[in-house]
Amino acid sequence: MMIDGLQCGHFDRDSFTRLKAGGVSGVVVTCGFWEGALESLDSLGAWRDLIRDNADVATIARTPADITRAAQEGRVAAILGFQNANLFEGRIRLVEMFAELGVRVVQLTYNNQNDLAGSCYEAEDSGLARFGREVIAEMNRAGMLVDCSHVGNRSTLQAIEASGKPIAVTHANADSLFPHKRNKSDDVLRALGQTGGVIGCAAYRNITGDYYSGPIGQWCEMIARTVDIAGIDSVAIGTDRAHNFTAPDYAWMRMGRWTRGVDYGAASAARPGKAPPPDWFQKLEDLTAIPNGLRSVGFSQEEADKITHGNWLRLYGETFRKTDS
Amino acid sequence: MMIDGLQCGHFDRDSFTRLKAGGVSGVVVTCGFWEGALESLDSLGAWRDLIRDNADVATIARTPADITRAAQEGRVAAILGFQNANLFEGRIRLVEMFAELGVRVVQLTYNNQNDLAGSCYEAEDSGLARFGREVIAEMNRAGMLVDCSHVGNRSTLQAIEASGKPIAVTHANADSLFPHKRNKSDDVLRALGQTGGVIGCAAYRNITGDYYSGPIGQWCEMIARTVDIAGIDSVAIGTDRAHNFTAPDYAWMRMGRWTRGVDYGAASAARPGKAPPPDWFQKLEDLTAIPNGLRSVGFSQEEADKITHGNWLRLYGETFRKTDS
Repeated sequence: MMIDGLQCGHFDRDSFTRLKAGGVSGVVVTCGFWEGALESLDSLGAWRDLIRDNADVATIARTPADITRAAQEGRVAAILGFQNANLFEGRIRLVEMFAELGVRVVQLTYNNQNDLAGSCYEAEDSGLARFGREVIAEMNRAGMLVDCSHVGNRSTLQAIEASGKPIAVTHANADSLFPHKRNKSDDVLRALGQTGGVIGCAAYRNITGDYYSGPIGQWCEMIARTVDIAGIDSVAIGTDRAHNFTAPDYAWMRMGRWTRGVDYGAASAARPGKAPPPDWFQKLEDLTAIPNGLRSVGFSQEEADKITHGNWLRLYGETFRKTDS
Repeated sequence: MMIDGLQCGHFDRDSFTRLKAGGVSGVVVTCGFWEGALESLDSLGAWRDLIRDNADVATIARTPADITRAAQEGRVAAILGFQNANLFEGRIRLVEMFAELGVRVVQLTYNNQNDLAGSCYEAEDSGLARFGREVIAEMNRAGMLVDCSHVGNRSTLQAIEASGKPIAVTHANADSLFPHKRNKSDDVLRALGQTGGVIGCAAYRNITGDYYSGPIGQWCEMIARTVDIAGIDSVAIGTDRAHNFTAPDYAWMRMGRWTRGVDYGAASAARPGKAPPPDWFQKLEDLTAIPNGLRSVGFSQEEADKITHGNWLRLYGETFRKTDS
């Protein structure tokens, strides 16, 4: 059993059958980057149709038990997530309603500062704003997991402190292992470890670097070194894999509607396009290599199980909540 | 036990305590007249807060059992409804999501023709439009009751025929008893009777007329004559009572954003303002007079029970559905 803490892009039937072949039973999917409330409802509607049309291979998970059940049935459980808080449109009351519609993971902000928090790409991280504190408390109550992957380190530390429940960094790496604005300081990783939070280690070359994007043993070496910082109960997988992504998708992801100019996101002017996948991760089916890769760098079976799914299941259990309808 | 098929306006704690004193255990509340999706979410959010803040006297009902339970607990069950389909914003996928958020009754259109159907106030009733047919089928599936109170007679007859489940006219009267554009033809009433639908008889003077707005016996006489047309299983109560309504509320209800001019809705240039309540219905507590009023015009206890709550409970049981969350 494996859970991927974050993927994005245009999923189709092929995505699910290949994730299944890759040993993945649960995956947090990205339902939006910049979309407001109505566009987010459209996205959720499209996701419901996609899952209904492929119910033999996929399902939507609202609880950890749904993921376990999907694993037993040989289906892939999609956990609905958003990489930005724009779906709330500044309205505290919308949090519980989106939770009722199945949304379980929301990132406080994406690449830009917003009304909740500062972003990893801003020259200055504002720290957690008033609405951010309100939304975290409401997400705690409504049964949603707070995600700080693209959030600045300062805001992330404040979110960890403000949240009554442990939080996640669903897809990032340790900045001390591969320096990048998107990666997290050791302070953040230690704070996650001390509070029951979890970081999903990414397999996106732009934030993983070429060495850790080599053979599977080298990527698992990065995981082992991340465990040294955050602890064995706080490290998991969050590949950041993008399905069927094309140039317009990258443009939307990076520029949204916020600039007439060019922004490279996690890429750079020198390497602006699609980053090549890690050597070990040419196709989704290659995810089957992870369990053995973890054993090869010295993890016990029990430890490898925590990394591949146990830590996410535990965190989801502490944060998700099935609401009345 | 009594169920009021439709009320509107600004409910507050006083509304619930007085409805309770009036013997009302369930009431369909109007969460919107012209509001789009986001404004409708705002309205639902405000309703949730209102109910949470008054949980000792009120609750939200998603099933008929919730209403029965509320009656036993001495609370008033609010059934969330909209008097227009604008909340869907032309999107079929939003129907099931609003159902999941607790919306149980939606009128196909309000005073103006829309993308679903023709209105009772248009010079020509367009009949049921393509999107209207789609929405009815989706409402059937998602567990929402179709309401045609302000819908034109032609569209209403087509809606009754198109719907796989019985429909409601939550608040109107028989046009043959008091002629008014808002009231329903005998054809519509008979069609309701033949298909398990229900009409909630209104106690709004503009569409009830002065005679049937006299003492309680006269209003119940109207109900008896409506039963003669539609049958004992298809007549109930839908007072159309407005709580804390002021001039700006009437302006929004009648003109919304669709005209720079003046529209009188169910009122008229000759009597444009707030209609005086029926003589028997000066205050909410007066609703206690209904059961005896019904007995006084010849209904048996069993028949009176159908009119005060049994018919609504039966129809809600056939149409409402608790959805997964």
